[in-house]
Amino acid sequence: MAKPVPGTLSLFSDLIHADPGTPFKLSAVNPADKRLGSGDKEEDKRRVEQLAVQLDELQNLFYADKRFAMLVVLQGTDTSGKDGTLRGVFGRMSPLGVHAVAWKAPNADERAHEPLWRIHRALPAKGEIVVFNRSHYEDVLVPVVGKTISARETQQRYARINDFERALTETGTVICKFMLHISKDEQRERLQARLDDPAKRWKFDPADLVARQQWAAYQRAYAAAISATGTPWAPWMVVPSDSKTQRNLVIATVLEARLRALGLRFPPAPPELAGLKVV
Amino acid sequence: MAKPVPGTLSLFSDLIHADPGTPFKLSAVNPADKRLGSGDKEEDKRRVEQLAVQLDELQNLFYADKRFAMLVVLQGTDTSGKDGTLRGVFGRMSPLGVHAVAWKAPNADERAHEPLWRIHRALPAKGEIVVFNRSHYEDVLVPVVGKTISARETQQRYARINDFERALTETGTVICKFMLHISKDEQRERLQARLDDPAKRWKFDPADLVARQQWAAYQRAYAAAISATGTPWAPWMVVPSDSKTQRNLVIATVLEARLRALGLRFPPAPPELAGLKVV
Repeated sequence: MAKPVPGTLSLFSDLIHADPGTPFKLSAVNPADKRLGSGDKEEDKRRVEQLAVQLDELQNLFYADKRFAMLVVLQGTDTSGKDGTLRGVFGRMSPLGVHAVAWKAPNADERAHEPLWRIHRALPAKGEIVVFNRSHYEDVLVPVVGKTISARETQQRYARINDFERALTETGTVICKFMLHISKDEQRERLQARLDDPAKRWKFDPADLVARQQWAAYQRAYAAAISATGTPWAPWMVVPSDSKTQRNLVIATVLEARLRALGLRFPPAPPELAGLKVV
Repeated sequence: MAKPVPGTLSLFSDLIHADPGTPFKLSAVNPADKRLGSGDKEEDKRRVEQLAVQLDELQNLFYADKRFAMLVVLQGTDTSGKDGTLRGVFGRMSPLGVHAVAWKAPNADERAHEPLWRIHRALPAKGEIVVFNRSHYEDVLVPVVGKTISARETQQRYARINDFERALTETGTVICKFMLHISKDEQRERLQARLDDPAKRWKFDPADLVARQQWAAYQRAYAAAISATGTPWAPWMVVPSDSKTQRNLVIATVLEARLRALGLRFPPAPPELAGLKVV
């Protein structure tokens, strides 16, 4: 299991939930929190860009090292910034060794299996970083809000997810779970911007308005899921996301710290290569 | 089928092979050609960086448009710069909608199928750009050099690849095939650098030295494959690659022209969304 990262991550201790025995209060997190910000937006953007370049270097080393895999989970309501995080934080890494999986509602074949079946097939290999844009957590959010599964089945799903993630971390996968937390007002502005801007309108889905009407139920479902599945091996981090720059700054900072803490290194050279001359 | 791009691509007409009825002379291409270069390396690097940012914008539009898929094939001998192209040309795009597949020798399950079986499963969906680092062409290079298939079987494989690629382009996939062409001297320097630099040594594979001994046979196999499978629907482009900056400049320029020629656009808004206000 990867070592905890006390230094940098202690800045965020109130945003991290790693104890499935205690409830996590999502409403206590201010979506407009800017604790990492310099107060100067342009300066913060430059900092994100610097971190993205450092993450690219670390990813190159991660790919070479091949002792670990990394699974990054991005969850959040519609417009919370999952695509934007992919571009802003991961957009400097080489596509060799990094890829994103955008999860949709399960198709007929996937529904004929248990919910984690399709997830297994998309997991990162050693050396790879896979980013889930939505994830297996949709299966404990959508049915809970839609009231299509019982409380007992919900608890079983949480427990199976915890077992699944523990098995992954025990076998070399580092799991980073981020819940992008925005306010209901911020979502209204972003949905309206999608409608009004021809370059964004393609992302607008009328179903998002239905989900918006269930805002309170989704917030409760997120709080319950985070409470139950924030574990020592795969903690949840709630990321204040009303500001896109702050969101990227927090996520990039955390990922950089997690990667540095792994003690990555280029694999040692086999002794028979020493002094070899290519002709 | 995508329209040809007469403007920009006419700069490269001697490097492009699109006629399987005529032989292509690989030895006529100078790996040190710098026709796009300004003469100032730093200036050329800035130009690559600008193009990479433009490619990121085009990829965002490509992902939104969803009328096309794109398959980019990177082939070339060891150290020819396939990984470096991924980082330099594609490294600015969002992982959402772009990913790379690094092909290895087929495993037992894959060998139990015909060679294109595993390729089908890795093809891009509409809106996606998939970059093959090595590709289905390994199956008409490695066995040809190893003399494990007959001339007749080789011709059949070429013909099946042409049919396969025609079917893909007819159904909306744009195919860009690049052969990264380096000199044998340049390869020696790069292999030696891999041995001597601890940050590169992990990429060194003693099997590369065996392939280097078969240099002439590989050059012949490449020329034959390019001759037979450079088609109007999926032309080959041979990229002078002794200079990494020039290689990236040529590939980024061609991709930018190919993407622009598609007439990409954000999907039109459904009329029922006009004037909608989010509450």
